[in-house]
Amino acid sequence: MTMHAPSSTLQAYLERLLRRFADLDGGRVATYIPELAKADPRRFAIVLATVDGQLYEVGDARLPFTLQSISKPLVYGAALQDRGPERVARAIGVEPSGDAFNSISLEPGSGRPRNPMINAGAIAAAALLQGDDGEARLARLLDALSAYAGRPLEIDAAVFESERTTGHRNRAIGHMLRNYGIVSDDPEPALELYFKQCSVRVDCRDLALMAATLANGGVHPQTGVRAVAAEHIGPILSVMTTCGMYDFSGEWVYRVGLPAKSGVGGGIMAVLPGQLGIGVYSPALDERGNSVRGVAVCEALSRDLGLHFLQPPRPAVMALRARYTLAGVRSKRRRPPEQERRLEQQGDRAIVYELQGDLRFATLEPVLRDIAGAGAELRFAVLDFKRVGHADAAAVRMLEGLVNDFAAQGRHLVLTRVRRGGLLAGFGAELDPRSAPAVSFQPQLDLGLEWCERGLLDGAGAAAAQHPRELAEQGLCAGLAAEDIEHLRARLQLLRFEPGALIVRRGEPADGLYLLRRGEVSVIIELPQGGSRRLQTLSAGMSFGELTLVSGGARSADVRADTAVECWRLGTAEFAALHSERPSLLIGLLRQMLRGSSETVVRLSGELTALDA
Amino acid sequence: MTMHAPSSTLQAYLERLLRRFADLDGGRVATYIPELAKADPRRFAIVLATVDGQLYEVGDARLPFTLQSISKPLVYGAALQDRGPERVARAIGVEPSGDAFNSISLEPGSGRPRNPMINAGAIAAAALLQGDDGEARLARLLDALSAYAGRPLEIDAAVFESERTTGHRNRAIGHMLRNYGIVSDDPEPALELYFKQCSVRVDCRDLALMAATLANGGVHPQTGVRAVAAEHIGPILSVMTTCGMYDFSGEWVYRVGLPAKSGVGGGIMAVLPGQLGIGVYSPALDERGNSVRGVAVCEALSRDLGLHFLQPPRPAVMALRARYTLAGVRSKRRRPPEQERRLEQQGDRAIVYELQGDLRFATLEPVLRDIAGAGAELRFAVLDFKRVGHADAAAVRMLEGLVNDFAAQGRHLVLTRVRRGGLLAGFGAELDPRSAPAVSFQPQLDLGLEWCERGLLDGAGAAAAQHPRELAEQGLCAGLAAEDIEHLRARLQLLRFEPGALIVRRGEPADGLYLLRRGEVSVIIELPQGGSRRLQTLSAGMSFGELTLVSGGARSADVRADTAVECWRLGTAEFAALHSERPSLLIGLLRQMLRGSSETVVRLSGELTALDA
Repeated sequence: MTMHAPSSTLQAYLERLLRRFADLDGGRVATYIPELAKADPRRFAIVLATVDGQLYEVGDARLPFTLQSISKPLVYGAALQDRGPERVARAIGVEPSGDAFNSISLEPGSGRPRNPMINAGAIAAAALLQGDDGEARLARLLDALSAYAGRPLEIDAAVFESERTTGHRNRAIGHMLRNYGIVSDDPEPALELYFKQCSVRVDCRDLALMAATLANGGVHPQTGVRAVAAEHIGPILSVMTTCGMYDFSGEWVYRVGLPAKSGVGGGIMAVLPGQLGIGVYSPALDERGNSVRGVAVCEALSRDLGLHFLQPPRPAVMALRARYTLAGVRSKRRRPPEQERRLEQQGDRAIVYELQGDLRFATLEPVLRDIAGAGAELRFAVLDFKRVGHADAAAVRMLEGLVNDFAAQGRHLVLTRVRRGGLLAGFGAELDPRSAPAVSFQPQLDLGLEWCERGLLDGAGAAAAQHPRELAEQGLCAGLAAEDIEHLRARLQLLRFEPGALIVRRGEPADGLYLLRRGEVSVIIELPQGGSRRLQTLSAGMSFGELTLVSGGARSADVRADTAVECWRLGTAEFAALHSERPSLLIGLLRQMLRGSSETVVRLSGELTALDA
Repeated sequence: MTMHAPSSTLQAYLERLLRRFADLDGGRVATYIPELAKADPRRFAIVLATVDGQLYEVGDARLPFTLQSISKPLVYGAALQDRGPERVARAIGVEPSGDAFNSISLEPGSGRPRNPMINAGAIAAAALLQGDDGEARLARLLDALSAYAGRPLEIDAAVFESERTTGHRNRAIGHMLRNYGIVSDDPEPALELYFKQCSVRVDCRDLALMAATLANGGVHPQTGVRAVAAEHIGPILSVMTTCGMYDFSGEWVYRVGLPAKSGVGGGIMAVLPGQLGIGVYSPALDERGNSVRGVAVCEALSRDLGLHFLQPPRPAVMALRARYTLAGVRSKRRRPPEQERRLEQQGDRAIVYELQGDLRFATLEPVLRDIAGAGAELRFAVLDFKRVGHADAAAVRMLEGLVNDFAAQGRHLVLTRVRRGGLLAGFGAELDPRSAPAVSFQPQLDLGLEWCERGLLDGAGAAAAQHPRELAEQGLCAGLAAEDIEHLRARLQLLRFEPGALIVRRGEPADGLYLLRRGEVSVIIELPQGGSRRLQTLSAGMSFGELTLVSGGARSADVRADTAVECWRLGTAEFAALHSERPSLLIGLLRQMLRGSSETVVRLSGELTALDA
């Protein structure tokens, strides 16, 4: 699915939203830093960014302003990355303070700031950034913030000067932190870094993309660059949830329900994990320091689009795209009738689950439960991963547990189309070594089905391929009179092919009809999207090439020898001559061709029904 | 997918978890109420309940204890239901207090309790329950809590007596609330109700099911009974998130990341919205009043099973099961070759989206975006709802917006298999009345495809059905010599059927081969799971009944007249006689049958490929 155009429905919705709240006056532009007081309170922008990088922007989306406190969760994330959660936890708590953003709010005794969203906690976080000197730490800061924006960000020198010369209260906080040993050296460098992070210039589009980077597990949705390790996303969003909107955080969770951070520059960044980033800009603030229109817009967005992260309806937990058994859908290997019958009877002993989306506890548990309920006769479970985007560590462990169970029960788990590059990274770590034979990875779903079929037939299929089928045993000759068979024999040419040889080539005219005496061949088509796909694998006693012969035109598929192959060919001219020479033979062959084709129609219809069940 | 057995992998995991934390001593059983002090600190239970009602229980899962503060979010929900959010918000705030659970924590000025999870807020919530007298309010309370448990709950009289006689601090809180007018009458009845809700007897299994009821949008996963309106779930889970674990709530969100509530009885109930409910019981408490083992177990569960509600990887947002165009998959209506060619060329103008799971903003937006990117030639979009479990209000509004856009663009939206009973409840409310012709509901996906085909052919299909096809124009007669056609004509019987008549009956032996002169018929099979499905719809010039005739055996499907029908029948005996009478005619017919069957094989293979693309 290629995504290349924004939805006009959503664009129109956002434009209505902008018009609706453009009249919402009230609130005041921040004045405690002189430079901020210059902002124009009429400016207004809303931007949504999806986790696959689509942007919806309305209003002054490219107007620059400064990040201010919105930098706090991002710098906290950088501190987690640079120093690890234990070290950071010793310096900064995670409890909401219930106090205003610029309160000192240090824990009695330890002097640890209550959380990283108040100024004290943010200064402590800035002090934890890695770097040999101030320049290196500043580079680290700008790199971290720029990765979230997906473009190089810069500091607004005027705002920084203004912050630095008027930040007396923050300077007091810095010295309190020094007093308690939270900041171990002179607090000035950490304060300077903090004033700089507040003065980083962004626009509303940057905010939405920063939020979308958090929503996307730390990877920027457009550049693909990781801004922060995935393991720190939960902690960052947690502190945004409980402390991100100052002493309005409880109300915010209640009314909006999105982890968020506001800044006195007028921005709000809000995150719907796994789905969406939101940026809103409007510089008039309420008494708590949050953008008046920003809060109103987020509340409306959450209500209108159903974004509250705790609200029903429940998110889709369905990871199952299709479920069927080998009785309904089989591999492309055609088998002699007695084997087909055995597979029809035994097919319920192999269940196929085509999975979809992300595998995690809640999506995999119903599948495991279905397997547990399948009854003692189950021998194979196939899990197809083609449409699985991600499997978390819990899902990998659950699969390992399933394999261990299967090994003990004499069952087999077949995992098909597991993409390379870490989709099941770490699989095997908790696998009992004796369980290894109970799991098989197969590159194609079709091959996984065939693997199960072989198991159900206990190797009978492989043996059959070795055994030559003489002319009277050929499927196409069923029902022919002995004289017709002799007539046919006289017109056949016996051909031999090495494994891998191309017997029939796509695009060529029909050179005859083939009867397979010994060995196996596969009929292969090229796919429009590239790559190839086997349509059938045939074994001794089966025929190919008849359809082009009857219908005319060019061969539609390649036929390749999978093993050493012996086959008879009835040439085009010899086939045509049967019409006058020996009509009864031709009628007999056509009847058998029609019967075979009808069986294929029934089989394919059955597969389509099974897939839609 | 029937779910009838727990997964042994998960059961084994929980047993390991229980053993691992059974050694975690420390903490003390609550003693501030004498009756609670009798609890045995060695007791321990863990229960998981999925939103589809599967239970995993280990330890003392059926041992009774009292609900205590775990009643608070549930009674808060009952108050929201009885009085509405505005009335409740006037009495109770939603900000975390930062203080201990039994602090008075009233807002300065208004006297409003900070939130419903502290005792003051819970007493205010109890005072809001609907009922004419104390008895009615008690019944309301017990009904509400019992609906969450899925069984009738009762009050532990000894605990209640103990609560009542020792609840001096709570009585003080009650009178403070009276003082501020939060409770308008004598606070005693509200206090009594509050003591009773704390004294309700449950077991750990009840806790897990209560949590699963919240996770499931308010509906008990086993009884199917709604315990609270869906709209109140977001608010309930919000206050649990920000205030549910007393002054450990920030740390809890950080470490565990599940809305939760603990009680001094030793229970913890935790909710993974949309997925899971967790109950843990172990009566030894830490200094904040939370179960020591309960906190440890929830932290381990969240980490091991990846349950943190804000943690990556992102949840599956994929609502798309399959996407294809009419060029790849067509309806079961067979059309004359010139129409088939037109549909092959024009097929990309109709896109089909098979949707899956829940539709909401984040799952529907990529589909709308794909439609927006489809290019100006797009005329039809089909959305198949067979596997859609729920569509929220935002999704319904987005679909309405799409229809309005489509109407302006001269496009059509076809919605197929939308279950009755409110799946798209309210659809149409924001539809421009002029847009109505731009949307079509079709009960079957197949019929939706046919609807688009008719549109692409601009009614040519319907006209073709009226036009009779004489014998020489029949597909089966293509390439036959004139004398062969005359030979055939002499052996045919012309039959007429009313609309709805059964022409061929499943299970009967073949009575001949049918050539359709005028009108339309459908080939229909019965499905194993009940119901029926059309395999094909055929129009004048096409044939049916040939396969059973050639292969023998009984008819595999019904053939029914969709319109008034005229058709020729070539009887079984007459067909058999052709072998000796006129082999050239038989050969010609068999060739055409084989050609038709081969085309069907190609078409069905193409559909299977398109569905797996």
